Amino acid sequence: MAVNLKTPNPADLLPVPGVRLGVTKAGIRKADRLDLTVIELAPGSRVAGVFTRNRFCAAPITICREHLSSGDIRALVINTGNANAGTGELGLSDARATCRALARVFAINPRQVLPFSTGVIFEPLPMDRLLVGLAHAVADLRTDSWFDAAHAIMTTDTLAKAVSERIVLGGKTITITGISKGAGMIRPDMATMLGFIACDAAISPPLLDAITREAADASFNSITVDGDTSTNDSFIVIATGQAGNAEITDADSEDARTIKHAITSVAIRLAQSIIRDGEGATKFMTIEIEGGVDRDECRRVAYSIAHSPLVKTAFFASDPNLGRILAAIGYAGINDLDVKRLRVWLGNPEEETLVAEHGGRAADYVEKTGARIMKHAELTVRVDLARGQAKATIWTCDFSYGYVKINADYRS
Amino acid sequence: MAVNLKTPNPADLLPVPGVRLGVTKAGIRKADRLDLTVIELAPGSRVAGVFTRNRFCAAPITICREHLSSGDIRALVINTGNANAGTGELGLSDARATCRALARVFAINPRQVLPFSTGVIFEPLPMDRLLVGLAHAVADLRTDSWFDAAHAIMTTDTLAKAVSERIVLGGKTITITGISKGAGMIRPDMATMLGFIACDAAISPPLLDAITREAADASFNSITVDGDTSTNDSFIVIATGQAGNAEITDADSEDARTIKHAITSVAIRLAQSIIRDGEGATKFMTIEIEGGVDRDECRRVAYSIAHSPLVKTAFFASDPNLGRILAAIGYAGINDLDVKRLRVWLGNPEEETLVAEHGGRAADYVEKTGARIMKHAELTVRVDLARGQAKATIWTCDFSYGYVKINADYRS
Repeated sequence: MAVNLKTPNPADLLPVPGVRLGVTKAGIRKADRLDLTVIELAPGSRVAGVFTRNRFCAAPITICREHLSSGDIRALVINTGNANAGTGELGLSDARATCRALARVFAINPRQVLPFSTGVIFEPLPMDRLLVGLAHAVADLRTDSWFDAAHAIMTTDTLAKAVSERIVLGGKTITITGISKGAGMIRPDMATMLGFIACDAAISPPLLDAITREAADASFNSITVDGDTSTNDSFIVIATGQAGNAEITDADSEDARTIKHAITSVAIRLAQSIIRDGEGATKFMTIEIEGGVDRDECRRVAYSIAHSPLVKTAFFASDPNLGRILAAIGYAGINDLDVKRLRVWLGNPEEETLVAEHGGRAADYVEKTGARIMKHAELTVRVDLARGQAKATIWTCDFSYGYVKINADYRS
Repeated sequence: MAVNLKTPNPADLLPVPGVRLGVTKAGIRKADRLDLTVIELAPGSRVAGVFTRNRFCAAPITICREHLSSGDIRALVINTGNANAGTGELGLSDARATCRALARVFAINPRQVLPFSTGVIFEPLPMDRLLVGLAHAVADLRTDSWFDAAHAIMTTDTLAKAVSERIVLGGKTITITGISKGAGMIRPDMATMLGFIACDAAISPPLLDAITREAADASFNSITVDGDTSTNDSFIVIATGQAGNAEITDADSEDARTIKHAITSVAIRLAQSIIRDGEGATKFMTIEIEGGVDRDECRRVAYSIAHSPLVKTAFFASDPNLGRILAAIGYAGINDLDVKRLRVWLGNPEEETLVAEHGGRAADYVEKTGARIMKHAELTVRVDLARGQAKATIWTCDFSYGYVKINADYRS
């Protein structure tokens, strides 16, 4: 069902010097599926992360925040099948025990390990199977396992999500490879569920933090499937420093802009892959809001459209029932919005048409055009609020029988 | 598919002295269905209303607000099949023309008419058919047509919604009868789509306004199907003053409390009927939040649960995947929420069980109990935030294949 998304070609996923990955079938929830991933980082690697703002955040999120604050991260461990969320004190002690076990293998401090979990909420981690699996995953560590890792972090995803890019920085070739997972429970304030990007550039910790926040904002924080903010969303950027470039520290430098652009580009492709593989998705929708007073109100209007079940079901039906878009704009909470000034366009990669202006249907708009445009799987809704200069873009998918089926059946 | 809702018995719907209703098949959108209703009010009737806060409000809403401000309303006209929303200047002039036409028949001022429309957004009203229909609806005026009117205002509703109550006030019998429609595009800030309640008590205009707002708050503003705030939501309360009671003016009087309680009770039953007939609904869910700092945060948590597609699909599946409720509480936007203190119960009319406390699964909770409770069609989620004394209750339904089908097919 995924919209214009394919399984990545393993040969396109470039190893990142300083990063090794190992996967295994630990049987966390189901037998015979890859569900445990270990990522080992070379000494001196820098790691930054942003996490869900859900107050019911999962135990591993709490541990990640703790461990990142002390720096010098050397390993990541990711299980699927169980989110270790809504698990109280037991969940925290299980996540700590996972870090201790991996630290013992690598002869590092448990604070140098970041744990991640994704899957069903509210159930205790099966620690016995997880700890046995750790040994197997470590035994499997290789530099060319990004393809396997992209598969091992999947839950309801139908396709693995992975992207590589190469850039040149100060004469040194820099490799950037990332993987992500997530198909439901996707919305702003960390929509990724999980995203990991590694590069071999040397980047100072404060700059890596800033780049990570900006990249998250433009990518994983700009998508939504269903408006549900997960308890476990995490986005991690790793810079191993193995490429030999001089450490980038100045945010205004050409090198900083180049690496930020490349990391953001990988993050956007990974985030869009999540939407393309959104639960039950049959359409990939780009919502572009311009002419707002500030970015915040543009995003509010965009999410109001993107979260409307009526808009999403109309797109599923390829039905240009565009009044539903107007209604969603109208309840986005902009109290002084002048609906007579705003304009709305509907488009696909081949054409775009003005559908609404002066508070109603555009004079030249005919429904036949809307119906033709909507048959495409890649659609754009563009709104000019005509109030200012700010703009924002988000990505979402439609709402289909498939979504209901997946989420009504998920545990059975 | 409606949950514990039946077509009302025509004999249970009591005429309200001072109110006559007429319906007809005007062919607004489809042939051979009741789609136009006229309500005639006796001179001296008081009318109050609350309306959608959607900025893209429909043309009739704008006219209703204008006309209500000048008082002395004598007639209402309601069409289905077309919402007259997103129709710009043409929509306003069509709504005004409708009022003029009905005013001519009744020999009243057009400002004494309130127009209402519901149905598809973004299309011009078929004025020719509507004006012809008006004459037929007027010719049909009777006091005992509440049952027919309840049917004539339906759109995607599967059942008509109508309720009558009788109370005694100062020795006089007061009759209260109401009808409502709505099954999708239902959320706070006027969730009714349309609701009309008439009584024959004499109530002063300021008190009737206050009662209308309070009744709306406790009923139509406390339900949600899909989180979409309609462009057309309207709730009207009529007091014809024909019962012969002394006009009630003092909000603190026993009589005021009695009539407010009765009108609110009718409004809640009508609002709950909308949820019971929610698009695709198979479960009727009551979300009770207590222990909040204020009512607003209780409502935010309640709506976060009620709008979560993951929660709603789990209820559709009768799957006690209760972590999804915790996640929805966690992203409700209460930044200082202590998830270790809150408690969550799941219940049906026969039993209730504590499912979460101390940030995780309650010690005594077993999934078998959750599964047994969820098989019932009437379910309660109760949350104690353990932060204060405020509480709030809202009603919602689950999210099924039926919802997607109805909204993907609505226009076809």
